[in-house]
Amino acid sequence: MRKIEHLGIAVRDLKAANELFAKLLGKAHYKEEGVEREGVRTSFFQVGETKVELLEATRPDSPIAKFLDKRGEGIHHIAFDVADIYAEMERLKGEGFEILHETPKKGADNKLIVFLHPRSTNGVLVELCQEIGG
Amino acid sequence: MRKIEHLGIAVRDLKAANELFAKLLGKAHYKEEGVEREGVRTSFFQVGETKVELLEATRPDSPIAKFLDKRGEGIHHIAFDVADIYAEMERLKGEGFEILHETPKKGADNKLIVFLHPRSTNGVLVELCQEIGG
Repeated sequence: MRKIEHLGIAVRDLKAANELFAKLLGKAHYKEEGVEREGVRTSFFQVGETKVELLEATRPDSPIAKFLDKRGEGIHHIAFDVADIYAEMERLKGEGFEILHETPKKGADNKLIVFLHPRSTNGVLVELCQEIGG
Repeated sequence: MRKIEHLGIAVRDLKAANELFAKLLGKAHYKEEGVEREGVRTSFFQVGETKVELLEATRPDSPIAKFLDKRGEGIHHIAFDVADIYAEMERLKGEGFEILHETPKKGADNKLIVFLHPRSTNGVLVELCQEIGG
């Protein structure tokens, strides 16, 4: 875990949230990107070495739509940058954490990603991410 | 907003959470600190330029106890490091954000802190913090 790579925030309206977070952070988002397989559209702001990632659902069965229905808008997950996602998955499995997928998948922002189940991490949805080719 | 200074996570049992997050992050917390006025006991882990702050309630009327009752364990707030908390409060008020207190107060870790109301920030409890003497 080298740094907090980004913090994911679930929002209902990406356009409105982009404007709100631009005011809050004092700078505009630097990109938007869709991850169609996950049914999300994302927007990124850089803050120091970390990013704020806004997440809007693009269909009702998206994990973000389900989160919004259950908990409303707010912080959705915390993502840690790792050097070797496979090694880190092995280490964490050995420590008793529950990994949500057997193998990493391609996420937004050119990353290999995997999630830990929040029931093994004090209610926090934790993502591991490794820059592809990084 | 120079960086994400820390991420606050509400936990029911600080001792158990310290052990869990030490396994997750691959390193031990570097300090514990109580903020009696707020009814919380905190524990800090360094991750890159950011800290993870675990928060345990020390009495039933603590804001953390209320959060745990309502939402359970999980991410409680995100804190941004600012150079001049008074100037940033003025700027954000001007942008329409709702600041929870008129003047900053002393928080954990030698900081002046103030919170924005989550209803003005997409459901995210945002803290501004400035190092005292920093």
